[in-house]
Amino acid sequence: MRFSSAGLVTDDEAPAGFFPEFVDSVLRGIGQVMLQNNSYAGLIFLIGIGYNSTLFALAALVGTTVSTATAMVLAVDRSLVRVGLFGFNGALVAIALLYFLQPGVLAWSCVIVASACSTIVMAALLRLFGTWKVPALTAPFVLTSLCVFLATARFGRLESTHLLPTAGLPKAVTVEGVVVASTVAEGLFNGVSQVFFQENIVTGVLFAVGLLISSRVACVAALLGSLTGLAVAWGMGAAEPAIRAGAFGFNSVLTAIALGGTLFVLNTASISYALLATIATAVVFAAISAALEPLGMPALTLPFVVVVWTFALASPLFPGLRASN
Amino acid sequence: MRFSSAGLVTDDEAPAGFFPEFVDSVLRGIGQVMLQNNSYAGLIFLIGIGYNSTLFALAALVGTTVSTATAMVLAVDRSLVRVGLFGFNGALVAIALLYFLQPGVLAWSCVIVASACSTIVMAALLRLFGTWKVPALTAPFVLTSLCVFLATARFGRLESTHLLPTAGLPKAVTVEGVVVASTVAEGLFNGVSQVFFQENIVTGVLFAVGLLISSRVACVAALLGSLTGLAVAWGMGAAEPAIRAGAFGFNSVLTAIALGGTLFVLNTASISYALLATIATAVVFAAISAALEPLGMPALTLPFVVVVWTFALASPLFPGLRASN
Amino acid sequence: MRFSSAGLVTDDEAPAGFFPEFVDSVLRGIGQVMLQNNSYAGLIFLIGIGYNSTLFALAALVGTTVSTATAMVLAVDRSLVRVGLFGFNGALVAIALLYFLQPGVLAWSCVIVASACSTIVMAALLRLFGTWKVPALTAPFVLTSLCVFLATARFGRLESTHLLPTAGLPKAVTVEGVVVASTVAEGLFNGVSQVFFQENIVTGVLFAVGLLISSRVACVAALLGSLTGLAVAWGMGAAEPAIRAGAFGFNSVLTAIALGGTLFVLNTASISYALLATIATAVVFAAISAALEPLGMPALTLPFVVVVWTFALASPLFPGLRASN
Repeated sequence: MRFSSAGLVTDDEAPAGFFPEFVDSVLRGIGQVMLQNNSYAGLIFLIGIGYNSTLFALAALVGTTVSTATAMVLAVDRSLVRVGLFGFNGALVAIALLYFLQPGVLAWSCVIVASACSTIVMAALLRLFGTWKVPALTAPFVLTSLCVFLATARFGRLESTHLLPTAGLPKAVTVEGVVVASTVAEGLFNGVSQVFFQENIVTGVLFAVGLLISSRVACVAALLGSLTGLAVAWGMGAAEPAIRAGAFGFNSVLTAIALGGTLFVLNTASISYALLATIATAVVFAAISAALEPLGMPALTLPFVVVVWTFALASPLFPGLRASN
Repeated sequence: MRFSSAGLVTDDEAPAGFFPEFVDSVLRGIGQVMLQNNSYAGLIFLIGIGYNSTLFALAALVGTTVSTATAMVLAVDRSLVRVGLFGFNGALVAIALLYFLQPGVLAWSCVIVASACSTIVMAALLRLFGTWKVPALTAPFVLTSLCVFLATARFGRLESTHLLPTAGLPKAVTVEGVVVASTVAEGLFNGVSQVFFQENIVTGVLFAVGLLISSRVACVAALLGSLTGLAVAWGMGAAEPAIRAGAFGFNSVLTAIALGGTLFVLNTASISYALLATIATAVVFAAISAALEPLGMPALTLPFVVVVWTFALASPLFPGLRASN
Repeated sequence: MRFSSAGLVTDDEAPAGFFPEFVDSVLRGIGQVMLQNNSYAGLIFLIGIGYNSTLFALAALVGTTVSTATAMVLAVDRSLVRVGLFGFNGALVAIALLYFLQPGVLAWSCVIVASACSTIVMAALLRLFGTWKVPALTAPFVLTSLCVFLATARFGRLESTHLLPTAGLPKAVTVEGVVVASTVAEGLFNGVSQVFFQENIVTGVLFAVGLLISSRVACVAALLGSLTGLAVAWGMGAAEPAIRAGAFGFNSVLTAIALGGTLFVLNTASISYALLATIATAVVFAAISAALEPLGMPALTLPFVVVVWTFALASPLFPGLRASN
């Protein structure tokens, strides 16, 4: 995939006609949640979500459709829309809003308006980070979703589910629970499935299959990323239930895909660099989760965004790493 | 008005001599709080403030004078000073400090130093955002004021009034109070008057008159902005007293003026774009208010700044919107 | 010193051979904590730390070595490494981690990984701020250290010492204690020694001697900076024990060195500008300390970073100030 420049969709893969083309853009948008410009990957991700929950599959479809359509109405450069760059944030916004807010007319209205707004935020960040040729990643999703969640503290008709963290002051913890073989096995695939807010091993396996169809390197990177995040959390003494649920994995999955197979040409230097970033992502996840605790907000994929921004910004100063595009 | 480039003051409107020219710059500075490069508008805004409180009118005058004079001492490009770009943040800093801090010698000293500092912050942001040709807006006011308010937690002689929010952890609310016709009527004009921290309907009407003299489009945008903010807050279930006080209006007023009559040529696309931004501003106000709750800090005009930055940054990617300068 | 551009090390001061050259780079790295590209200053700073604590002297040496070596492995432009630009953040990260975390194998492992990461963050910020030719300062240290400290709230095996602030909601304070002559005398030199997290008057004197060897202007600026921070805190009613410990001094020390002797040519305008920045630093320290209170995090040198960024960004708009390089 290309992040910031116009990724051309060649004629032989672009279906003819407006509707099939739109469907293709939407599926690529879902694929881009895992940084894959591949409509088959997007379709399998959608099936994976649907296996766990039809509500979230519907949400992903609606969110991607709204954000992609918004970009088309605003006449964004067609090549950017066609590779799904204006879809993935809408997909995540829609799932997150229906995960953390009580479903209903108002929540669904918020899904639609927020997915549309994610397109504006995406355009803003494309322009902001274009200066340094750094991708916007899932920052539009994070910013838009956190705004809506925070607003529940002022808007009485916007009710959150009990799944948002309870607001409190961060404090030091002791090691909770014991990591066993099933923690690792479940945590590994839950880490992959949590990228779409799903906690389901079969969904995680389906996501890995989707990645495999798009890119073997991305599939391997995702699984190693999940494992690295899990291992760091285990070694540092994170709570066992959180490790099992994949909480320390999904950001590392994304970092590993981005740095270990997308942004750089693979060699010893770039693999070490990606590994360091993947380790850092698990620590930054712990840090951002704690930092958002007084607000009762989840970290979402902000740790992935912050770490990949840092490592991507820094990379031109390191001649051993060569950009892949 | 021009945000970032040199707005020329033509000969026929520039009074001769240093003192009248300085007074003109100061009045334009007060006008720029509502994005109007117009000394008559500034004068009427000052009268509107004075109708509600002579203290705040004096503060606005002192703050604008200090920040404008600081810019002149530092030899900032004259054309920027002449259009009031180095006045409006000083005006707001001075009012906010005297609104939230116990008046006295120390508070007034802080007003003078903070107004001077707002000029440095303004220059820093002009340079930072000049890269993308995005205006600094009232960010210097927000950053400078929040610093002083936060410092009250360490400096025993710097006493805050009971008007700063109480620090607490944000939590979900239920709908409080019933919105009636008088809520809407008062909220509409309070939303306009709250731009200068005033809660007074007559002041709001005077501000609207000041806008009308400068620009009919800005006047209409301000009133529609206030109404939109109010309507979003009402629909989402915000507390009635906050709606009546104009709390959900003043940021939307500024967003509507900036996007609905200043930055873009008016057409269907730009009006829809401004409307979406104005709606988003009310939600972002709720979000930022909640986010600042653990610190006991007010959102000030930060929601306006964040939303207009986002929509202004994004706009060049949307060919339907044409910049007005 | 040069912040952002390649500072050339001339032949007559560069020792021959890899090892002496590396040692020289490391010592310059320690010197750069106080913005001095001078290996003798670095050596005296190291002795000053060792006078107070051999643990922290060892930490400074390890941190600087790791971050400098990381930059060399990643093949960063040699001239940047040679002037110590990739050392000072590692030095501070290492001291801060061992100051706020219980020592042990895990804490030392964190020191090594975090020092290496500070080099990546430094490269990212050099690139980000290179756009405006603004130095990265100690931001990599602040960001990296806060991440690790925040992570203690999720990682049971990462134990903090009792020296991290207790998380709480900021509230207004009353004046605590009476400032006497010994408060001023101790606070003056503690302010200098706190730059390296040491609270020791002799260490402060040794640091001043190190500065004197490198630059008389820097030495005078540091002492006046410490005094200014102390005076502002005293005048505003800060707690006497904090003033005595130098808490309000160390950020002002760094601001005074950066703005009062490094970035600009000295004249009346630049000295007034540096003085305003130094005063602002003490207020921003109070503000950031309060803002981080709900997280139980220390402000570290973030106030210095924020103020110098602002004043350095703004300076090209003020023709009276001339950049020194």
